[in-house]
Amino acid sequence: MEKAYIGVFGMGVMGQSLALNIANHGYAVAVYNKDRENTEAFLKKAAGRENVTPCWTLEEFAASLEAPRKILLMVTAGKVVDLVIQSLLPLLDRGDIVIDAGNSYYADTRRRERELRERGIRFFGMGVSGGERGALEGPSMMPGGDPEAYGYLKELFEDMAAKTPDGTPCCAYIGPDGAGHYVKMVHNGIEYADIQLICECYQLMRFAAGMEVEEIGAVFEEWNRGRLQSYLVEITAKILGVRDPETGRPMVDVILDAAGQKGTGKWTSMEGLDIGVPIPTIAESVFARYLSALKEERVAAAKVFPWQSRAALPDRETLVSQLEESLYAAKVCCYAQGFALLRAASEQYGWGLRYGEIALLWREGCIIRARFLEDIAAAFRAQSDLPNLMLADAFAPALRQAQAAWRSIAALSALSGTAAPALLSTLNYFDSYRTAVCPASLLQAQRDFFGAHTYRRSDREGVFHTHWESY
Amino acid sequence: MEKAYIGVFGMGVMGQSLALNIANHGYAVAVYNKDRENTEAFLKKAAGRENVTPCWTLEEFAASLEAPRKILLMVTAGKVVDLVIQSLLPLLDRGDIVIDAGNSYYADTRRRERELRERGIRFFGMGVSGGERGALEGPSMMPGGDPEAYGYLKELFEDMAAKTPDGTPCCAYIGPDGAGHYVKMVHNGIEYADIQLICECYQLMRFAAGMEVEEIGAVFEEWNRGRLQSYLVEITAKILGVRDPETGRPMVDVILDAAGQKGTGKWTSMEGLDIGVPIPTIAESVFARYLSALKEERVAAAKVFPWQSRAALPDRETLVSQLEESLYAAKVCCYAQGFALLRAASEQYGWGLRYGEIALLWREGCIIRARFLEDIAAAFRAQSDLPNLMLADAFAPALRQAQAAWRSIAALSALSGTAAPALLSTLNYFDSYRTAVCPASLLQAQRDFFGAHTYRRSDREGVFHTHWESY
Repeated sequence: MEKAYIGVFGMGVMGQSLALNIANHGYAVAVYNKDRENTEAFLKKAAGRENVTPCWTLEEFAASLEAPRKILLMVTAGKVVDLVIQSLLPLLDRGDIVIDAGNSYYADTRRRERELRERGIRFFGMGVSGGERGALEGPSMMPGGDPEAYGYLKELFEDMAAKTPDGTPCCAYIGPDGAGHYVKMVHNGIEYADIQLICECYQLMRFAAGMEVEEIGAVFEEWNRGRLQSYLVEITAKILGVRDPETGRPMVDVILDAAGQKGTGKWTSMEGLDIGVPIPTIAESVFARYLSALKEERVAAAKVFPWQSRAALPDRETLVSQLEESLYAAKVCCYAQGFALLRAASEQYGWGLRYGEIALLWREGCIIRARFLEDIAAAFRAQSDLPNLMLADAFAPALRQAQAAWRSIAALSALSGTAAPALLSTLNYFDSYRTAVCPASLLQAQRDFFGAHTYRRSDREGVFHTHWESY
Repeated sequence: MEKAYIGVFGMGVMGQSLALNIANHGYAVAVYNKDRENTEAFLKKAAGRENVTPCWTLEEFAASLEAPRKILLMVTAGKVVDLVIQSLLPLLDRGDIVIDAGNSYYADTRRRERELRERGIRFFGMGVSGGERGALEGPSMMPGGDPEAYGYLKELFEDMAAKTPDGTPCCAYIGPDGAGHYVKMVHNGIEYADIQLICECYQLMRFAAGMEVEEIGAVFEEWNRGRLQSYLVEITAKILGVRDPETGRPMVDVILDAAGQKGTGKWTSMEGLDIGVPIPTIAESVFARYLSALKEERVAAAKVFPWQSRAALPDRETLVSQLEESLYAAKVCCYAQGFALLRAASEQYGWGLRYGEIALLWREGCIIRARFLEDIAAAFRAQSDLPNLMLADAFAPALRQAQAAWRSIAALSALSGTAAPALLSTLNYFDSYRTAVCPASLLQAQRDFFGAHTYRRSDREGVFHTHWESY
């Protein structure tokens, strides 16, 4: 029997979709799952495809693969990945390639890559975005690992991946060890912020301006035809048009307003804090989910703290246009934060990330896919060492233009009592960044006062301390 | 020779002050430092005190202490603590007590307590706040460890600690293992927010309202006579009154506006993210420091993004009064966040924290000392299971009252282009918390749309999924 080009370990929903995607592109694929039921379920889905080989034991699986073996793991992130690697190791040969396509934490990927490299195994951590459907029809793929070994994967991955309108595959080699999973993590952090910003615009229209759900849906539909075009805006418009078959009420009024999460936004926020990169909007988006989960407390507090809006509302058209400008500006800020984090990580871990290429990987196939990402790619093509995305020629004029509207919407949020923590954090990020003289001089004076932490001066070099108490 | 009651290991600035504090209270204290120079320096400071025993070897140090030995470590947090413990272990007997009074990470303290307990040594992690002067004259002390062993430390620590106006010592047993260091960490997180809020009020007066530095100093001086009375407000007033002897300019205009930090605010923020407690104001305060450090980028961006304020300024008296209300409300919110974090940690780690007592520990001796903390203590005395500090009878009316002013100041910040990320995050925290219906229903719909993550309904139990694409 002919050997398979690649093996997929793990026949959960995502593993099945990726294996089918591989087979659909004409590659021979062997599949394995610990419980045979999943493999059997997959075989039904893959019926008629001769390039699919089911394996019922690990030995059979290892034997079915051509050299060097290429094994894609699609199992639950965490300890399971280590256990699976341990079970595979005795069956592998030096030079074999193992790809972890799950949502692993990048530091785990760095450790695994190091441990496996010592044993001659080439390990990849690959971020895959797009959910079940993306995995089948073309996900966004972010592989990180040994650059030479990538030669065995490039063609396959590019075939599998989503394509941009001009045919560029949404897959490219990201960098060594944990780089792929890191980029996927930041993708998810940006996704949290993107989602939260949309939710806040909805909330402002609904509760500060008193618009109807369908009317708001139409606004998102319109926005999706402009520079805000994106998958998330598109599905928002669709969602707002759906009514509950049972009650006839808009679905958004029936769904419990307590957000779930799977931890990647939290990882991103913690990483920003840890390596010293300001990503307030991503953190605010995570905190907003935590606050939403306190449903009972919120309902009780609403009675304790009533507020009658004191905001002067502009006419509908002006309001919608101000919101569009604000959402666009906010979006630029949150991508600026994400890319600043990537830049710091690239320097810290020596990854040599190519930001423009990363933006294009996210152009299609993933949750944050949007026309907008082409502008980001262009910005980095024009200036690869851009200190901050906000300064790019593609965005700076729009931000300057958006300021008035953005500030009005921030005031509307505050005066109407409609929380918009992510939106306001973007404005504060922008304002902090464009503040030549910030109050950290007072902060440094305080630290020097109470802890003799010393300070620098703005007019000359050196480290100084004042005996404040003597004044 | 009579044996010493306690030994202090580490004769740095803080260790010297603590040892002197101990001696000044009449306890016999043995001291040791790896490099003898520090010990010699200490002996000069302690001249004339017969209850101080210098030790020049570890063996001498161990032999000089009465049983059970009580050894207070004041060494650099991190690996040094482990090395010091390793060096001491062979010289200790079962039942001896080791107290780490440095700024250790609580998870390290939990590990060390566990490891030492297995060897019969009773380990304490103790947060100490107040800097060099506090350590000498009376710090705020937060000891965590074995409750029985605390019997050997209680009287000494209470003697050493700062006292509230009614004589209560600012020291009390916090809870097992890492509880003391955790509480100190949260203290520091609140300190970050407290400082940042003061800085933002200064910035609004200075740049949004165009007030002079001394004039602003007078405002803080006035505030310090009211409900905002606190050490940080007091030193802010003093700092704003100091001019640079060299240039004659206000010191705050001479000091470089790039903030330093030592990581505890970052730890607190990461902890909130990790255990799922919204503490946005603490995180925003950390990010504000990171942004301040980008001085060159800020100066460049200021030219790219000019903004002419469109805010309508109220008269001076109204503005100052609105700021006072905003700062007070913001302060309540940031303490609410800190105490919510303590509550979650107490549940998670089974610490049984007593929040009112913790508030009183911070009443004197530490950086965030303030009259205000008595109200917090009273609030928890009145209701120990208070879900959120904002709801306490002592604070809810003030928050209701402050709303109008707080919202006006938020609008002023946005419309004038004066960044106030912490202040605005408190308003958003407040508004999110008092929002009965938040937009997380839309967020859950999106997650269900793109990832089949399912949702709950607000009208009945169960887990649901919608085939959104079919609409």
